[in-house]
Amino acid sequence: VTSEPQFIAMMRSIATSPAANGLQDDVALIEIGSETLVITHDMMVEGVHWLPGANPADVAWKLLAVNLSDLAAKGAHPIGVLLGFMLGSDDWDIGFAAGLHAALNHYNVALLGGDTVSEVAGPRSLGMTAIGRATHIPAPSRTAAKEGDWLYVTGTLGDAKVGFEMENGHSGGDQSLRDAFNRPKALLDEGRALAPLVHAMMDISDGLFIDAGRMASASGLGVTIDIANIPLSRGYINFCGDTSGSRLEAGSWGDDYQLLFACSNAESLPVAATRVGTFLRGTGLTLIDNGSAIESPMVLGFEHR
Amino acid sequence: VTSEPQFIAMMRSIATSPAANGLQDDVALIEIGSETLVITHDMMVEGVHWLPGANPADVAWKLLAVNLSDLAAKGAHPIGVLLGFMLGSDDWDIGFAAGLHAALNHYNVALLGGDTVSEVAGPRSLGMTAIGRATHIPAPSRTAAKEGDWLYVTGTLGDAKVGFEMENGHSGGDQSLRDAFNRPKALLDEGRALAPLVHAMMDISDGLFIDAGRMASASGLGVTIDIANIPLSRGYINFCGDTSGSRLEAGSWGDDYQLLFACSNAESLPVAATRVGTFLRGTGLTLIDNGSAIESPMVLGFEHR
Repeated sequence: VTSEPQFIAMMRSIATSPAANGLQDDVALIEIGSETLVITHDMMVEGVHWLPGANPADVAWKLLAVNLSDLAAKGAHPIGVLLGFMLGSDDWDIGFAAGLHAALNHYNVALLGGDTVSEVAGPRSLGMTAIGRATHIPAPSRTAAKEGDWLYVTGTLGDAKVGFEMENGHSGGDQSLRDAFNRPKALLDEGRALAPLVHAMMDISDGLFIDAGRMASASGLGVTIDIANIPLSRGYINFCGDTSGSRLEAGSWGDDYQLLFACSNAESLPVAATRVGTFLRGTGLTLIDNGSAIESPMVLGFEHR
Repeated sequence: VTSEPQFIAMMRSIATSPAANGLQDDVALIEIGSETLVITHDMMVEGVHWLPGANPADVAWKLLAVNLSDLAAKGAHPIGVLLGFMLGSDDWDIGFAAGLHAALNHYNVALLGGDTVSEVAGPRSLGMTAIGRATHIPAPSRTAAKEGDWLYVTGTLGDAKVGFEMENGHSGGDQSLRDAFNRPKALLDEGRALAPLVHAMMDISDGLFIDAGRMASASGLGVTIDIANIPLSRGYINFCGDTSGSRLEAGSWGDDYQLLFACSNAESLPVAATRVGTFLRGTGLTLIDNGSAIESPMVLGFEHR
């Protein structure tokens, strides 16, 4: 089986257009006149990205939110989306359509088009393409963190992890954690506010550690994260405790869709965010616990999604 | 099971943006400054759009060509594509990547980005989004055929049908027919040449009859097609014969990706095309054989793909 990094390496050798930026980002940037369009595509697959019994309205919400989250990380204002939909059962499809409608209204985003294919035996897969306009040019990439920059993250991490465990039948946990998994928020306002002052920005879809490492690597730097600074919610702490181990888990889990950004430590930020680390000359991710470098967890995040 | 028309009706009630044009076209049109961007998304599913044993390079080619064909029908110049890819076996993925590379080079189109998801049990599904610039504004829609317009089609029809039968083990038939199924051409040059003078244009993905009926319906007209005028290749005639029945089959089968367009009968055309019918006041599709209206075949084309 091909690994995702291996396939992406093959695609990188093909994607030589400047608009693709070496596929180092989750988006493509297309310059049209004086505008920069930001365009992204995400797939979601039953059993990988959602549980087979999930509410189809939640699936629709999440499909939209994860796409818009990529636009948010570039400070883009969404124009609209195209949907690739696989038909299935009546109830599911109707629930999905209603949920999509509500989510589009919530974000004030237009459905522009797409494609529908007939049902097949096996898990459903869905695709969405989102298009937006950059509100600040150049749109922040993930490749331009500078040595000495501080690494910040919005919100709290690990909540979606607990929500996922709750969906899998674990007892305890607040509804807010379940929502964090099922109905992530695309931080469009925050992304637009941050775009003019960050050096690099991306959303955390695969986990803080893996995504911070990607930003550092794309920027030709190393990054150090002090795990004591990983922001945790009250709900997460109630469920998982507040230990080095629970912080490592929060940093290894994806699906939170918070914004991760690099900026100079002199900036005052227009958005609430927590400093979790520092970019330094070198390579790789170094985790600090109690003043000492520790070994990174075996699994830094989701590579194969 | 939800039918595709039923689901599309649900989506139409959501897609109220002018850029979506009521989802009446295969593309969305986004105005940016003085430019019009044309954007389309198509999915392909193993067992629905390609046979499980198909050459992955052919699948890559077809995924690109069907998307570019939607741009061709709007007279657009392609900018690039985003790929939604489901990982599977090494050989397949590598064959797909190589085939995609060759196809992108053939059409001189950039790979801009996309998403990769892990393998799942069940048929593979792939998605592609293509973006282009309209070379003639307004880009031709499918909604503006006029009463008295002639209906034209480029090339020949039914070749992909024979190619599909050959892939399913039927003996006989030229390689050109197999290629018509596996490696359809996106008629980008032809679409750009026609865009300034047509009243309506689309590509034939689902079949001449169903697609002509859609153009007529979207334009508030009826359309009459004389089946004697359906253009057939020598290879098709050798395989299927040249009878009313074989012409009806050629008009009912999709996957040819020829351009279908409406224009005034006074135009001289920059592209070789065959007049197959006429738009008239009224509704629906009327087929003519030997001077008399005949009953339409039970299945006009592919509705559920």
